[in-house]
Amino acid sequence: MPRTITAFSNPLIKRVRSLREKKGRRLERLFLAEGLRILTEAREMGRVPNWVFYAPEGATHPLVDALIAAVEGAGGEAIQTDRDILSKLSGKDNPQAVLGVFDEPATDLDRIDRGSADLWIVAQALRDPGNIGTILRTGDAVGAGGLILIDDCADPFSVEAVRASMGAIFTQKLATARWPDFLTWLRAGPGHLVATALDGAVDYQSPTYPTPCFLMVGNESQGLPADYAAAADLRVKIPMLGKADSLNAAVATAVAAYEIRNQWRRG
Amino acid sequence: MPRTITAFSNPLIKRVRSLREKKGRRLERLFLAEGLRILTEAREMGRVPNWVFYAPEGATHPLVDALIAAVEGAGGEAIQTDRDILSKLSGKDNPQAVLGVFDEPATDLDRIDRGSADLWIVAQALRDPGNIGTILRTGDAVGAGGLILIDDCADPFSVEAVRASMGAIFTQKLATARWPDFLTWLRAGPGHLVATALDGAVDYQSPTYPTPCFLMVGNESQGLPADYAAAADLRVKIPMLGKADSLNAAVATAVAAYEIRNQWRRG
Repeated sequence: MPRTITAFSNPLIKRVRSLREKKGRRLERLFLAEGLRILTEAREMGRVPNWVFYAPEGATHPLVDALIAAVEGAGGEAIQTDRDILSKLSGKDNPQAVLGVFDEPATDLDRIDRGSADLWIVAQALRDPGNIGTILRTGDAVGAGGLILIDDCADPFSVEAVRASMGAIFTQKLATARWPDFLTWLRAGPGHLVATALDGAVDYQSPTYPTPCFLMVGNESQGLPADYAAAADLRVKIPMLGKADSLNAAVATAVAAYEIRNQWRRG
Repeated sequence: MPRTITAFSNPLIKRVRSLREKKGRRLERLFLAEGLRILTEAREMGRVPNWVFYAPEGATHPLVDALIAAVEGAGGEAIQTDRDILSKLSGKDNPQAVLGVFDEPATDLDRIDRGSADLWIVAQALRDPGNIGTILRTGDAVGAGGLILIDDCADPFSVEAVRASMGAIFTQKLATARWPDFLTWLRAGPGHLVATALDGAVDYQSPTYPTPCFLMVGNESQGLPADYAAAADLRVKIPMLGKADSLNAAVATAVAAYEIRNQWRRG
């Protein structure tokens, strides 16, 4: 049976509230995801939250019932609360009707089964959690297997990244690694590393992309370090026809990833 | 000669500070842009701020000198200040070395000379200023003439949008219009309206795109209204190979715009 919590001072509320900050997430190894659609997608992927919070006005939706049943069936807890508490937990004035608290998965490189997809995205030192979430969302759309984060990136389990991923945090594999470890891992099996770059790069439409392909993008303001690009099998550039010399990192990733996918779609 | 302001209580500081809010911008018809690179790009486009603020540690850079000279030559004012004031004006703990205050340009549809470019971007009811800025940046990169904002969109002159545009707020034409007025204007001259849509749409790689092309994207969560899509000459969809049914709005715009440009690049 769901229990009801409506006190801000409740220790569980305080604990869940702490997950909006990186410190709280690192301590608890838990993260937040909001919205019935995204939580339903997670459930369909077999990812059930440890706790689900919902406001009574949302409790009559059959998908909320299904979510509650799944959480309780997995030994988790469904908690009825109110919109004020949901606002406090989500940090939004106009919160979603449901909010789930999930175990943070491990992000070791050995989680990546490179044979399970023909395309993987690699992102280096991304600072903007919104970009990380948007790249996860794009990865799902373009049929990538997942995202490998190199060096110090923003936290993919932050509220901003999870929100921007629109559920792809549950459908894309996620790994984090230092550059030397990634390169060692990559070279221990099949894989063509494609760097988006400006110097010494060919037009991104000219090469034939082999599979599995690892598409790598760099930091928002610096791009990829020169030695990272040099270690790739191929350096490609997207034509820039105006005054600017670069695209937003998530946009560049999407434009290059769709080019690769389109080439393969044509056979 | 530059004057020096270091008091938070200075009326000009208060006035410029008000431009971080939409109310202040509407009252003053002014907006903020930060960063030496972007302000230099604006200067090279003939767009000189009414005021430029800079910290003394940045004052020895030749591009700062050039900016100050341009501002003073145009009858504006260069103001030396300190990092605390720059932080207050920009809303960032780590502010850029220079900050400019610019006149907001008019955004009437008649600012758009459709013959001056082969590609134009049209965005409807976008809520996220970051998406608007990112679309401006993409428009510059892909050689679009500018951005036409339909219905109620976030403010393209907000600090977030200007920042995300990375200078493209100065290089792309910008217009705002209600849908019926846009459609009347569009149909009064040459122009092929392409809607990104899901229903009744063809794969975005299959059509031949005529010029001038107006690429239209819809609201982040709702997409385009059905009657807007129906009024277009062509409805295209980007293939979605995963669980998600849509891309981020700025990402979808970029993927479609590069497809159009690539088709034309091939001749």
